[in-house]
Amino acid sequence: METAGPSRASALDLQAVRSGVDAVLDDFFGSRPRSAETEAEGTFALAGDVSDFVTRGGKRLRPLLCAVGWHAGGKTTISDVVLRTAASLELFHAFALIHDDIMDRSDLRRGAPTVHRAVESRYPDHPAREDVGTGAAILAGNLALVWSDELLHTAGLSPAELAAVLPVIDVMRTEIVYGQYLDLTTRVDAHAGVESALRVARYKTAKYTFERPLHVGAALAGAGQGLRAALSAFALPAGESFQLRDDVLGVFGASEQTGKPVLDDLRQAKPTVLMALGYQRADTRQRLVLDALVGRPELDEHGADHVRRVLRETGALGAVEDMIRLRHQQALQALDDAAFPAAAADAARRLVHGVAERTA
Amino acid sequence: METAGPSRASALDLQAVRSGVDAVLDDFFGSRPRSAETEAEGTFALAGDVSDFVTRGGKRLRPLLCAVGWHAGGKTTISDVVLRTAASLELFHAFALIHDDIMDRSDLRRGAPTVHRAVESRYPDHPAREDVGTGAAILAGNLALVWSDELLHTAGLSPAELAAVLPVIDVMRTEIVYGQYLDLTTRVDAHAGVESALRVARYKTAKYTFERPLHVGAALAGAGQGLRAALSAFALPAGESFQLRDDVLGVFGASEQTGKPVLDDLRQAKPTVLMALGYQRADTRQRLVLDALVGRPELDEHGADHVRRVLRETGALGAVEDMIRLRHQQALQALDDAAFPAAAADAARRLVHGVAERTA
Repeated sequence: METAGPSRASALDLQAVRSGVDAVLDDFFGSRPRSAETEAEGTFALAGDVSDFVTRGGKRLRPLLCAVGWHAGGKTTISDVVLRTAASLELFHAFALIHDDIMDRSDLRRGAPTVHRAVESRYPDHPAREDVGTGAAILAGNLALVWSDELLHTAGLSPAELAAVLPVIDVMRTEIVYGQYLDLTTRVDAHAGVESALRVARYKTAKYTFERPLHVGAALAGAGQGLRAALSAFALPAGESFQLRDDVLGVFGASEQTGKPVLDDLRQAKPTVLMALGYQRADTRQRLVLDALVGRPELDEHGADHVRRVLRETGALGAVEDMIRLRHQQALQALDDAAFPAAAADAARRLVHGVAERTA
Repeated sequence: METAGPSRASALDLQAVRSGVDAVLDDFFGSRPRSAETEAEGTFALAGDVSDFVTRGGKRLRPLLCAVGWHAGGKTTISDVVLRTAASLELFHAFALIHDDIMDRSDLRRGAPTVHRAVESRYPDHPAREDVGTGAAILAGNLALVWSDELLHTAGLSPAELAAVLPVIDVMRTEIVYGQYLDLTTRVDAHAGVESALRVARYKTAKYTFERPLHVGAALAGAGQGLRAALSAFALPAGESFQLRDDVLGVFGASEQTGKPVLDDLRQAKPTVLMALGYQRADTRQRLVLDALVGRPELDEHGADHVRRVLRETGALGAVEDMIRLRHQQALQALDDAAFPAAAADAARRLVHGVAERTA
């Protein structure tokens, strides 16, 4: 129904954007040893850790949303400049994930060992291998961040385009660091309330993953504040629904689909809305179950099943599914209300449907 | 003798640059909560960790060298744009130090607890306080890096200036990450040879601390490859002498002057030229002393004295002092050979003298 408007000619081919972004990233990694102007031995391992991580997988959601923002700004073709700008967001995301995995002490990402674990395994007999893994992963993340800058600086943006994009990038970066810090401290301070958990979701995901990539694309297209506000009205509920779905998959999902160990969120007592609602609605017995199991590094599948039962019985799971549905509708409504070109609105709808129905 | 040339009128007032940079940093930190466009509670602690770290101390060596590069490029007055660009290098340096301190597990920096220890102490009773400290310090470093970008982007550079400066910044950033990685892996792989230790010094210090800040200033002044090469000829020996002095102070210096615990380098078996020479020149008995003590987290002052005696008796300390002297002379010779304006050459001489004679 909502795809009645756009003709094929004006459609935004998300798969083509994805391939284009991947080609830019491949080219960029291929050019590294020379353009870094360094013959330093041994650093190729670190560069390889970053390129392996980026090329191994990922939904490329931020580059895709950047392309949607570009079309929302009235552009109809995707230039190499746009692809390179979009790809720089993916490299930035690699930075955020590599550091997140250190902080979460995660073993697995995208179906393979996390960077800190991969480096650790290169020093099987060294007593300080865990410190070396952590240190090298901090540096791998930093390298991804530094390279995302270099990719942006060499994307071929005109001075006016650069001046429009950089402030959005700067705000995005501060926001994600704040979001990660909120995540870290909310986890520590106590059982997070629903409001705290939603705030983490807003900074760590809704703004960073949805709103700012759309704004980057729109800024590149020369769009002003009005269009950016309309994009935010779509992005924030869409991004929150994405994070809420992520939280559900983190407890109820299948590891072989998500590429992440399914017990990590529970073992780390991640401050999610799902868990906050579980605690809020639990009776005395159910709260004892949660207290005994959530946050235990040794939690197993059997224990996780007890937690899952509490989240079902309290209605926490159902409530989160309701929240996802509501935000999904709000996002679609925002698209209907906005006067985006059909190609942008159509692609945004496809992305948000994929988000709501995803299993990974 | 070498200061005979410049008249007072053309002198570069390094103290004024330092004050100007500090004022820029104060302004920047003061503007943070608003310009981050975030009302997120709790993040002020992280912003405070970064601003405390930066304003607490530091030699401001990189901003000063940036100003020297600017004068080397033929400019005579320091504009606000130059000060802001120079200050962005200091914020970048805060990023590098905060992360270095995590990787070195250091307790003290600039006479106060390192960021990860400071955060840890905010959660005295939490079982995961060490992980929280590490995680928050990773984020504090990231915030400093992100902010150094924002400060640069908002420094008021013209498109042409920005286009000249960004490639230097990009190379500098990749080099320092590579240098930190070489530091980390050289430490782990074995007893580093003198060549490996010198390579770490070159990437981690000579290029990052001396060469690239000079190039940033020169690029801002519109200088070409010839002038940059002349600056490199000065910067690399000057930077190596700086690092070699740092290594000596790390073993023989006084903690109250360096602001760092004096035993850290020995406890962590830092891959310095000093230690590499010590191992290379040690006889069987001396090597046993080094093997028994270097790299022990529990090393005390008494044990450190044994190590110091070996470094003296083998002549390793003397050899490093010779290397410092040689590089000092090479740096001064490079200044004599270059046709830098007197103000730049004079300031460079003062900086390199201060570096050679420093005790902190």
